Amino acid sequence: MKSKFIVIEGLEGAGKTTARDLLVDVLRQHGVTDIVFTREPGGTPLAEALRTLIKEGVTGEEITDKAELLMLYAARVQLVDTIIKPALARGAWVVGDRHDLSSQAYQGGGRGFDRELMDTLRQAVLGDFTPDLTLYLDVAPETGLQRARSRGALDRIEQESLDFFHRTRARYQEIAARDPSILTVDANGTPQQVSEALRQTLTRWLSEHN
Amino acid sequence: MKSKFIVIEGLEGAGKTTARDLLVDVLRQHGVTDIVFTREPGGTPLAEALRTLIKEGVTGEEITDKAELLMLYAARVQLVDTIIKPALARGAWVVGDRHDLSSQAYQGGGRGFDRELMDTLRQAVLGDFTPDLTLYLDVAPETGLQRARSRGALDRIEQESLDFFHRTRARYQEIAARDPSILTVDANGTPQQVSEALRQTLTRWLSEHN
Repeated sequence: MKSKFIVIEGLEGAGKTTARDLLVDVLRQHGVTDIVFTREPGGTPLAEALRTLIKEGVTGEEITDKAELLMLYAARVQLVDTIIKPALARGAWVVGDRHDLSSQAYQGGGRGFDRELMDTLRQAVLGDFTPDLTLYLDVAPETGLQRARSRGALDRIEQESLDFFHRTRARYQEIAARDPSILTVDANGTPQQVSEALRQTLTRWLSEHN
Repeated sequence: MKSKFIVIEGLEGAGKTTARDLLVDVLRQHGVTDIVFTREPGGTPLAEALRTLIKEGVTGEEITDKAELLMLYAARVQLVDTIIKPALARGAWVVGDRHDLSSQAYQGGGRGFDRELMDTLRQAVLGDFTPDLTLYLDVAPETGLQRARSRGALDRIEQESLDFFHRTRARYQEIAARDPSILTVDANGTPQQVSEALRQTLTRWLSEHN
């Protein structure tokens, strides 16, 4: 099978880490052995330094929404150009914990940046590069945040209002509804239910795209 | 006089620091007392953190040109929105050591990003916000770099090739030739000659813009 870039997306507490482990199981069952993992923001030394600034903030200063957006894209283009594209070129599969759809949902939906600015920036930075498949784990913000909270302290973004996460989820759903490369998995159930739904969705996609 | 945003621009070793001191002298002679200094990239805690990443790089990784460009704009918008615009709004003058013209010259000219991408990014991030006056200190790269080298070790950007700085200077000159808010000062002479030229240029501009 030709190498593919598969992204896992969703709100805090949607179950992205569990999904990644299951995704790897399924890929290995399909004979894929060379898999590169990425996470965004992050995944290179520079991008991880930017992640820390974005997640933890800076003492004595509010990060403006635009600065945050540009830092996210700086980290993303560094990751795409130095890790993801070379991996795909050598035949590895890439499994990403978040990618551009997160910015569309969180910054576009949550923070309210206008769509034209988001599209312009995306096109200027990434051009036509997009994942082959995005698995969007759809979870109610209340459910996801409760799971995230039970894992420990929340970071700067996880501390946003519930309303912010509702706007973010609405944008995720809206984009997923019109983009056939994004498959939605109901992530509100038990881990077993979510895993089973994910396995079925992924297995079907792989059988259709080999 | 209404508050103004004045920027000093030029290659490494053009004499921007000396120019700043002289600019402040002249402004004070004109009765301006509330002056805010900025430098780019930098000038806020977040922007200074980004400056360090840009100037010093990251161990074990080449920063891609696009990531550099986006980090520069992240630092710039943070500075403009949290420092420069509030200062101007309260009536202070702002004197900037570099601003957007540096990106146009270094990234657009030196690194060779296409103009449309540079214009699109600038417009998306800054909109119509521009300095009232830019004093561009025009110096031959050989002269400027010799001065910079005599000050000590060169940073990541100062270590670029001479050809890079020639492309950067050519873009500075080209933009200055068509933008009436940019005044060029010959910075190839002795400190006294440069200071005298700068004082005359600034004094004339102030008399025309009060």
